[in-house]
Amino acid sequence: MLQPPPAAPGMPEDEIDTPALVLDLDAFEANLDRMAGFLTNSPVKLRAHAKTHKSPVIARLQIARGAIGQCVQKVAEAEALAWGGIPDILVSNQVVGAAKLARLAALQGISKVAVCVDDAVQVGALEQAAAAAGTRLTVLIEIDCGASRCGVQPGPAAVELAKVIAASPHLIFGGLQSYHGSAQHKRGPEERAAAIGHAAEVTRRTVEQLAQQGLGCAIVGGGGTGTFENEVASGVYTEIQAGSYAFMDADYARNEQPPPFRQSLFVLATVMSRAIPGVAVVDAGHKAVAIDSGLPLVHGRPGLHYVGASDEHGKLLVEDGAAPPLGEKLRLVPGHCDPTVDRYDWYVGVRKGRVECLWPITARGGMG
Amino acid sequence: MLQPPPAAPGMPEDEIDTPALVLDLDAFEANLDRMAGFLTNSPVKLRAHAKTHKSPVIARLQIARGAIGQCVQKVAEAEALAWGGIPDILVSNQVVGAAKLARLAALQGISKVAVCVDDAVQVGALEQAAAAAGTRLTVLIEIDCGASRCGVQPGPAAVELAKVIAASPHLIFGGLQSYHGSAQHKRGPEERAAAIGHAAEVTRRTVEQLAQQGLGCAIVGGGGTGTFENEVASGVYTEIQAGSYAFMDADYARNEQPPPFRQSLFVLATVMSRAIPGVAVVDAGHKAVAIDSGLPLVHGRPGLHYVGASDEHGKLLVEDGAAPPLGEKLRLVPGHCDPTVDRYDWYVGVRKGRVECLWPITARGGMG
Repeated sequence: MLQPPPAAPGMPEDEIDTPALVLDLDAFEANLDRMAGFLTNSPVKLRAHAKTHKSPVIARLQIARGAIGQCVQKVAEAEALAWGGIPDILVSNQVVGAAKLARLAALQGISKVAVCVDDAVQVGALEQAAAAAGTRLTVLIEIDCGASRCGVQPGPAAVELAKVIAASPHLIFGGLQSYHGSAQHKRGPEERAAAIGHAAEVTRRTVEQLAQQGLGCAIVGGGGTGTFENEVASGVYTEIQAGSYAFMDADYARNEQPPPFRQSLFVLATVMSRAIPGVAVVDAGHKAVAIDSGLPLVHGRPGLHYVGASDEHGKLLVEDGAAPPLGEKLRLVPGHCDPTVDRYDWYVGVRKGRVECLWPITARGGMG
Repeated sequence: MLQPPPAAPGMPEDEIDTPALVLDLDAFEANLDRMAGFLTNSPVKLRAHAKTHKSPVIARLQIARGAIGQCVQKVAEAEALAWGGIPDILVSNQVVGAAKLARLAALQGISKVAVCVDDAVQVGALEQAAAAAGTRLTVLIEIDCGASRCGVQPGPAAVELAKVIAASPHLIFGGLQSYHGSAQHKRGPEERAAAIGHAAEVTRRTVEQLAQQGLGCAIVGGGGTGTFENEVASGVYTEIQAGSYAFMDADYARNEQPPPFRQSLFVLATVMSRAIPGVAVVDAGHKAVAIDSGLPLVHGRPGLHYVGASDEHGKLLVEDGAAPPLGEKLRLVPGHCDPTVDRYDWYVGVRKGRVECLWPITARGGMG
C-alpha cells in the first residue's frame, strides 16, 4: 500500500514525477525560524499543530527550534508522532469510543499524551481507559470560545467538569483548550482581534474561577496561524497551536495583513493536455490538491489561472501568450495546506532547483 | 505508512473504529449484478472505471460478472491493478512525462494496457517510450465530445492524429475515447439525453471518417453512471466506463430519475461532542469524506443534518428529539464517492450488521 516516492535525492526539480507535494526548504526553514524568533523572549511556548504536517520529521525540526511539543487532532496522528519519537503530544480534541481510548492510553508508555474533553460522561470513559491501562491521563477541558463546534461553555460549566476530572483517580486535570478556529480566516485584522479578544476574556475568567477552586491550569492552549499574535498578546495563553505557518496557503494569503510567513508548500503538476484553445489541463485535480477553501493558484506563471478541478484534472485558463508547452511542470499553491498534505505519502524537499530529501507523511489518511 | 485496518472480520458493525469506509455488501453486490444484467444481451461491454474503487479486488468481482476489463485515470492506478492481477486496462486519459511513460510501458509485460492521446507531439513521446521498452502500446484518441477539457476535436483532427499513430511502428491505433463527464450530473434526463445525443453523433461521424481511411476502432469508449443507458442506446459505443454505479453517492441521488442502483458506500462516523445545544459533532470532516460535490447526508437518522465540515469535525444540526448519544455511530452518505474512497486505505465490508471482509485500497493516493 506504500506508494513509491515520486523523486530521488539529487534529482533536478523538473524531473519529479507528478502530482507531487513539494516543500521549498529555504522558505520552510525561514518560516520555522521566524516563528521561533517571534517567541524567543515570550513566556508563551509553541506547541505546533501536526494536523497540518502529519510528520514526526517536521515535528522534530520544530522542537529543535524551541517548540515544547505537538498538537494532534486524532489518535492516529498521536500514534504516528509517538512512534516517530515525539515525546510530548496533546490531542487538542475529544476522543470517543473504547477502542480509540485504549489506543490512546497505550501510547503513555512511550510519550506523554494529553487529551481534551467536553462532556462529563466522557470523563468516566477516560477514567476507565486509563485505569484499564494502568496509567494516568492528563485531560484538558475544551471550552467553546466562539466557534460553536465543540467545547463546554466557559465559566461555571467548565469548573464543574474540572472537578469531575480532578476527582478521577487515573486522570490529571491539565488545563484548558480554547481554540477559535473560525477566527483564523476572518479577513480583517480588527475582526480577528475582536474574536480573540472575546476568546481570551472568557478564557481568563474561566482560569480565575478554576483557580478559586484550587484547580490550576498547567496548559492554556489555543491560537492558530491567523491569530497567534493576538493570543500571545492577551497574556492568557501559555501555548499557541499554529500549524499552517510552516507551509502557508492561498486561503491564508487572502487575509488582510496575512501571517508573516512565506509559501513553502506546493503541488507540482504537469501540463497534460492543450487540445482546447485557451485551455491547458494539468494532472492535479481535487484528489491531488484540496479545494475546500478555494482553488489553487498557479505560482510564478502570470496568465495561467486554475479555474476548475475534477477528480484527476485541473483546468487552467490561458491568457494570450502564456500558453505552457505540453509537459511543463507548474507549481500550484494549494487553497488549504492541511488537507492537501493528507492526500500524499511523501514530501519532496527541494532547494535551489534540486531534490534534497524525501520525508514520509506517516500520519496521513482517513483513520481516526 | 500502512494504516492498520479499523475493524476485523466477525466484529459487529458497531465496533468498527471510525472514521471508516464501510461497504454494504448486499447493496454493492446487487449493484454489480444489476449492471451485469442490464448488459447481458447487449453488444456493448462494461469496462468499469477503477478511479472510483481503486481496488483490484473489486475489479475482479466486476470481471467475474462480465466486465471485459477496467479503466483507470492515471499510471499509479494502472500499476495497482496490474500488480493485483487485472489483465486488461485502459488509461482513459493522457499520460505525459518520460518517467510515467516508462512506467506505463513496463506494465505491458504483465497486463494489456492501452492509453489515450490528444496531441501529435505526445504520439512521438509514446512511440519513443514503447520503442525503448521493446513493446507496442495500444493508443486511443480522446475526442472532445462536449466537456471542453481534454480531447482533440471530433472529425478531421482526430483522423489526422490517428494517421500519426498508425504510422508509428511501436503503436497500435486502438479507437476512440469519448467520455462526457459533465453530462453525468445534469439533473434532468432530457438534458443528459441531449448531451449524449450530441456526443454520440460526433463520435459516430468520427468513426465513419476513420473507417473511410481504413482506420478501424476496436474500442469506442465512454459513458458514466449518469448516462450509460444513453451511450448503450446510441449504438455507437462498444464499451461503457461506469464506475460510481457500484457505490453511488448523494450527488448522483440528486439527479432526476437517478441511476437505478443502491447506496452501498458509507463513511461510518462517531458522535464525539454534544456540548453545544442543537448541535452534534462527528469525527468525520472533509479529510474523511469528500465535499467537492456537496456535504454528506446522515443515513437512516431523520432529524440529523450534516451542515459543516472542517478538517476533522463534521457539524450536525439536531432537530428536537433526534439528539444522538455521545459515541453513537452514524452512517454518512458521501457527496462524491470517488474522492471519498481515495482518503482511505481499507474497505470494511459489512453484511447484516457484521464485518465480513477487509479489502485494501491499493490504488489510493496523490501519486500520478
